[in-house]
Amino acid sequence: MIETNGEGFTDITREVARFIKQSGAGEGVLLIYLRHTSASLVIQENADPDVQTDLASALRLLAPDNGPWVHRVEGPDDMPAHVKAMLTGVSLHVPVRGGALALGTWQGIYLVEHRTRPHRRELMLQFIGSQA
Amino acid sequence: MIETNGEGFTDITREVARFIKQSGAGEGVLLIYLRHTSASLVIQENADPDVQTDLASALRLLAPDNGPWVHRVEGPDDMPAHVKAMLTGVSLHVPVRGGALALGTWQGIYLVEHRTRPHRRELMLQFIGSQA
Amino acid sequence: MIETNGEGFTDITREVARFIKQSGAGEGVLLIYLRHTSASLVIQENADPDVQTDLASALRLLAPDNGPWVHRVEGPDDMPAHVKAMLTGVSLHVPVRGGALALGTWQGIYLVEHRTRPHRRELMLQFIGSQA
Repeated sequence: MIETNGEGFTDITREVARFIKQSGAGEGVLLIYLRHTSASLVIQENADPDVQTDLASALRLLAPDNGPWVHRVEGPDDMPAHVKAMLTGVSLHVPVRGGALALGTWQGIYLVEHRTRPHRRELMLQFIGSQA
Repeated sequence: MIETNGEGFTDITREVARFIKQSGAGEGVLLIYLRHTSASLVIQENADPDVQTDLASALRLLAPDNGPWVHRVEGPDDMPAHVKAMLTGVSLHVPVRGGALALGTWQGIYLVEHRTRPHRRELMLQFIGSQA
Repeated sequence: MIETNGEGFTDITREVARFIKQSGAGEGVLLIYLRHTSASLVIQENADPDVQTDLASALRLLAPDNGPWVHRVEGPDDMPAHVKAMLTGVSLHVPVRGGALALGTWQGIYLVEHRTRPHRRELMLQFIGSQA
């Protein structure tokens, strides 16, 4: 369970790496799944925090709050949140090598909150492969 | 094989759940793959049908029929369909727990048709994990 | 390791198929992962090269070089490249049947370079399943 601070990127790389370590993983693949429709998973640059600011801006331009949305019962930020989650997805995998996530040098794993307010988000992590 | 009614969202959660039940799955992961380039797979809200209407509108704004497309030989809806399929993807996974799909409360699995006319679309389902 | 020619689509289907053949794969699934944040993976039409031209145009419209980006230190093409990579993703799978990729008739696997200049990009391929 991950607590978000409202709209924006939460780096979950450390939590995910801890899961791999605790499960005694050796060689294989980690599958990550998010059980929500207004938050999503993104692997992106972890060096300059401006990148995350700009990624959030880009998503706002692609799915503006004042878009032609019919579904408005849950507030003006709800339907744009669904669009953003659709475009970025809730299911991905990362290779595991030698008991560690085989991320690229600049890659971090992010849970992206698309609603304005903070939420609790449920993540499912599954390792397939050999033990260390 | 899934029959679509032309542009829009087809809920395939029931078909997918039936596959998991029939395959005697216990704990593991279901991999879903769509063998097409102008339709795609999306996990999104299953409660209010307006959400699917708005998601389709959002995709039309992102890839309009009158965009600057060179590829027009298959009709004005073809190239936008490829763009929409690229943005949403044809490959995803869902965790399986206790012999059932571990979807979130509001998550449904959708095959999204991006062409105007109805099509037959081929889905590939694979379970990796232990038997029940 | 894949060499790209700068912005655009590189067909990697042949390299991926060779990996499946050399690994003696039978039935299962191939997982593909790209270790970068300004390039991504897309499964799309392999027949008419105009489709790839138009897909690149579509991405430029969605993430223009002159967008409201704060992160500019790596050049005007860098932040749009991150946005495009976020929208298309770095993680996907393809089913393997009878020792071959079970792609649809018109599907090719593409490494999409979003930076202007050529780059060397690192791909990770993993097969899960039975031997032939």
